[in-house]
Amino acid sequence: MARLDDFARFSDEEGRLTRLYLSRAHQQAARQYIAWCAEIGLPAKIDASGNVWARYEGRRPDAPALMLGSHIDTVRDAGKYDGNLGALAALSVVEELVRAGERLDVAVEIVAFGDEEGVRFPTTLTGSRAFAGLFARSSLDQKDADGVTLREALTNFGCEPEAVATLRGRNVAAFVEFHIEQGPVRESESLPGGVVTAINGATRFHATLRGLAGHAGAVPMNLRQDALAAAAEMILMIEARARIEDDLVATVGRLEVEPGAVNVIPGEARFTIDIRAPRDERRQRAVADISKRLAAIARERNVALTLVHTHDASAYVCDPNIVAGLKAAVERIGQPARLLPSGAGHDTMIMGALCPAGMLFLRCKGGLSHNPLESITTEDCGVGLAALMEFVRGFKPAA
Amino acid sequence: MARLDDFARFSDEEGRLTRLYLSRAHQQAARQYIAWCAEIGLPAKIDASGNVWARYEGRRPDAPALMLGSHIDTVRDAGKYDGNLGALAALSVVEELVRAGERLDVAVEIVAFGDEEGVRFPTTLTGSRAFAGLFARSSLDQKDADGVTLREALTNFGCEPEAVATLRGRNVAAFVEFHIEQGPVRESESLPGGVVTAINGATRFHATLRGLAGHAGAVPMNLRQDALAAAAEMILMIEARARIEDDLVATVGRLEVEPGAVNVIPGEARFTIDIRAPRDERRQRAVADISKRLAAIARERNVALTLVHTHDASAYVCDPNIVAGLKAAVERIGQPARLLPSGAGHDTMIMGALCPAGMLFLRCKGGLSHNPLESITTEDCGVGLAALMEFVRGFKPAA
Repeated sequence: MARLDDFARFSDEEGRLTRLYLSRAHQQAARQYIAWCAEIGLPAKIDASGNVWARYEGRRPDAPALMLGSHIDTVRDAGKYDGNLGALAALSVVEELVRAGERLDVAVEIVAFGDEEGVRFPTTLTGSRAFAGLFARSSLDQKDADGVTLREALTNFGCEPEAVATLRGRNVAAFVEFHIEQGPVRESESLPGGVVTAINGATRFHATLRGLAGHAGAVPMNLRQDALAAAAEMILMIEARARIEDDLVATVGRLEVEPGAVNVIPGEARFTIDIRAPRDERRQRAVADISKRLAAIARERNVALTLVHTHDASAYVCDPNIVAGLKAAVERIGQPARLLPSGAGHDTMIMGALCPAGMLFLRCKGGLSHNPLESITTEDCGVGLAALMEFVRGFKPAA
Repeated sequence: MARLDDFARFSDEEGRLTRLYLSRAHQQAARQYIAWCAEIGLPAKIDASGNVWARYEGRRPDAPALMLGSHIDTVRDAGKYDGNLGALAALSVVEELVRAGERLDVAVEIVAFGDEEGVRFPTTLTGSRAFAGLFARSSLDQKDADGVTLREALTNFGCEPEAVATLRGRNVAAFVEFHIEQGPVRESESLPGGVVTAINGATRFHATLRGLAGHAGAVPMNLRQDALAAAAEMILMIEARARIEDDLVATVGRLEVEPGAVNVIPGEARFTIDIRAPRDERRQRAVADISKRLAAIARERNVALTLVHTHDASAYVCDPNIVAGLKAAVERIGQPARLLPSGAGHDTMIMGALCPAGMLFLRCKGGLSHNPLESITTEDCGVGLAALMEFVRGFKPAA
């Protein structure tokens, strides 16, 4: 916890925490991470994409590695725990092993990914993508808001841009990420930790409804084609559809109304729909149901509906052995282990393409994140770390 | 119809019709109106507030007057018929009497009010307000967007600002206004004309809902306090409450959502409510019901509701004798007479404070108004004028 507080001083903006990929603050944070590794005799390196990586050998020098870590970039005006918790927890696990002179059958590798949030460049998850061998070379030409390309930023950071696309972790037996929940489920159940079963897939739409604007006094109710009233019916339908299934969520986060005057019946309404589920077939079923009912409501209300599909991401189902192992570890330290999906995306879902992967969630206050008010307790953190330690000590690579 | 087309050239803006109170275009339009009156031997005057007024004597010089008219100011980028139709129809009625050498028991006064729309200065309906003796002297200090006071604008127009507050029509037996409907009821029933029973009273609110913003993926449905979903339920409730009573209308015209991102559950929603009915007690009952149910929905959904009452205007119930007279006149020319309320405000509701008042509505295309696409047919206009003429010929002042 003291390290997390200390680490938060590396920021690109004064007075608040903003640490963008390949920025000066990222450079400082990476150096600090390397310095902390050095204190426990671990030589850490920065890879071609800016990730900090270190390896604590197992009993055999060529032992497969259990990899632990998360990201150390942040959103603008961030909290101290998103990403950083997992990167520093990985370090703490190895530190405990080193101080105890304890070697495992497997090596333990730790990583502090450089880009998960994707705030600076158009793509997200560049760090884990590169490590997992999924980096698209064309991304090197992407530019930040100041016109700096990723290639230039990597070079300035001391990396080799041309080597990123050929990066790929070797002999990694598993990846486990410790992360704040960013949701309120743990808190609502008064449980500090949770084991992630899957990272939700997501489908997004932009909906536009065109009705007929009219005088709020002069058009009787039965002659209206009110785009906002139609949108309201759709929003409630979407909510009701999501409510009937556990772990399915659907959100209308944006809504704009035209012309938007107190005395004019809305002629147009535009809104976004975001549908997520831990299983793709459940998400697809919900998407199909919702699309069908949107069309039916539009028809009944005589408004024109345009539905544009803007985003589709598959769910990542966490490795069952890792889920079972994390659950057992949580229970061995005397805690109830609640299984839950992750609504947000994480490095884990990318690392899942390289090796079996899973996540341990930590309760955070009010479910808040991406916010300076992000908060965890020292006690919870201790429980989470103990569970992670327990998992690491009991870990066996799949045969 | 030709005069209406001709009249539309008096505009403050090139290429579209915008005729603001006391502007150059208003001056030109007023002069044209006076010139048309002169052609039929009627001396017209501009009163202290800029209204053009003329009197066609009845059989006795001191006969009470039946007053006909409407306003000749427009909104920006207006249609040709809103207001102007009634002002020019009044002229046509007198012209027909003059050409036929026909004198009635009553005098017929015609008026072209200078300000109904209230686009230039903060207050609306200045023309009829002044004529009805309801002008507030403090309004003289109100300024337009260029900082010109109403006092200065009146002086520039050639009026006497200090005389406005002492204006008051004398010996007026009734006021009747011919106006486009500005709504779709006539069109939907394929009826050219309608008799207005009342001008709706209105109550307006600003509602603010505060729930809890959260991650669209990480917060399960049962732990949400979604401000937009709550607003959606309220919008449908408001719509349903209005639908159960004829002539009651309720509109949510504006809605804004915070933070308004595709992947964030809305933490705040703000919207307007506009409730109108031709009878105050019915509007008040609806307001009470809606307020109660808004509070109930907010409670159930665990969002905080703030409801600010922003506007309240009483309904004007048209004079029953005039309503009956207009209805009989419409039927005498062989048309079905549909009675309906007016959703929009009109000079008639102000004139109702001076004398018995009523209105005749004319179908307009698609119910459109305040729009250059505002449109009426020559045939409909003929039917409406014939009904008005019939009413005028049969008019008897109340004993």
